[in-house]
Amino acid sequence: MRVLGVDPGLTRCGVGVIEGRPGRPCTLVAVDVVRTDPQADLPARLLHLDRELTALIAAHRPEQVAVERVFSQHNVRTVMGTAQAGAVAMLVAARAGLPVRTYTPSEVKAAVTGSGQADKAQITAMVTRLLRLPERPRPADAADALALAICHVWRGTVQNRLAAAAAAARTGGAAARAPGGQR
Amino acid sequence: MRVLGVDPGLTRCGVGVIEGRPGRPCTLVAVDVVRTDPQADLPARLLHLDRELTALIAAHRPEQVAVERVFSQHNVRTVMGTAQAGAVAMLVAARAGLPVRTYTPSEVKAAVTGSGQADKAQITAMVTRLLRLPERPRPADAADALALAICHVWRGTVQNRLAAAAAAARTGGAAARAPGGQR
Repeated sequence: MRVLGVDPGLTRCGVGVIEGRPGRPCTLVAVDVVRTDPQADLPARLLHLDRELTALIAAHRPEQVAVERVFSQHNVRTVMGTAQAGAVAMLVAARAGLPVRTYTPSEVKAAVTGSGQADKAQITAMVTRLLRLPERPRPADAADALALAICHVWRGTVQNRLAAAAAAARTGGAAARAPGGQR
Repeated sequence: MRVLGVDPGLTRCGVGVIEGRPGRPCTLVAVDVVRTDPQADLPARLLHLDRELTALIAAHRPEQVAVERVFSQHNVRTVMGTAQAGAVAMLVAARAGLPVRTYTPSEVKAAVTGSGQADKAQITAMVTRLLRLPERPRPADAADALALAICHVWRGTVQNRLAAAAAAARTGGAAARAPGGQR
């Protein structure tokens, strides 16, 4: 399963594409930060983000997209930009026909470090380890996007298993061998 | 000048197109509310809004777009949806190559009623009067979108005059006759 993780931001939007399967290590496909000019007007910045994300999907063909869910507890100005950038990311994914899931920052932290309160350095360290990279991903602030993608592969796995188990229960066990592709 | 006003919202997004010129009454071209299904997932709702607004621009060919500026003092959940819908509106306008301006609710109220604290009924009454409509615009919650468009025509006029005056001052009067199209 190829997953695009998007850590939305108007000035810097982290993007990471990984390839992952249930129970196997994930591998890095691409990682980058899409920047928009803070001096440009907002509609132009949103359009630039739209085009860059659309090009990224065309280039790397993810099958699913994970976007960080925005909270409004934070700084008001930042949150509005993040909400707007997140809306563009979801819109681009929907336009490409890709399923989108959102995760809160603490869900992502818990998924990759085991703690919902993990700091940035810890997340970067775990992302580097989990993707078996020779060094930390660059740009450094794209690590969160990779963490999101990893979170999605793993959480998706759990959800797939639950769905398979539920299906098995309904059909008396016949469906239990169907999902996963490996018998 | 043909202006599209957008009162952004995820469940109901007011849209109004008017034709207006400096110093003349504005006329109604189109008014509607774009609805998205609250039961649908967010990416699908944003995509629906994108398509509806794109179709509206193609159908009515506005030259400029006015979007209500979102504040985060309000209800947190509503504001996120409004910010996301507003982002789609700005993105669609930018994609169509149209200039976009944003106005705060009190700027719009002050422009059409003379008071930044005017209530909904007062705005609707003034929009009905200013566009010389036989009755209140329907859907009722699209009145704010029309008010935004009227605000843009009027504020634009003032700004055009200031710009013209500034240009005239710089060039010693020669440019003063250029803008506006009517000599």
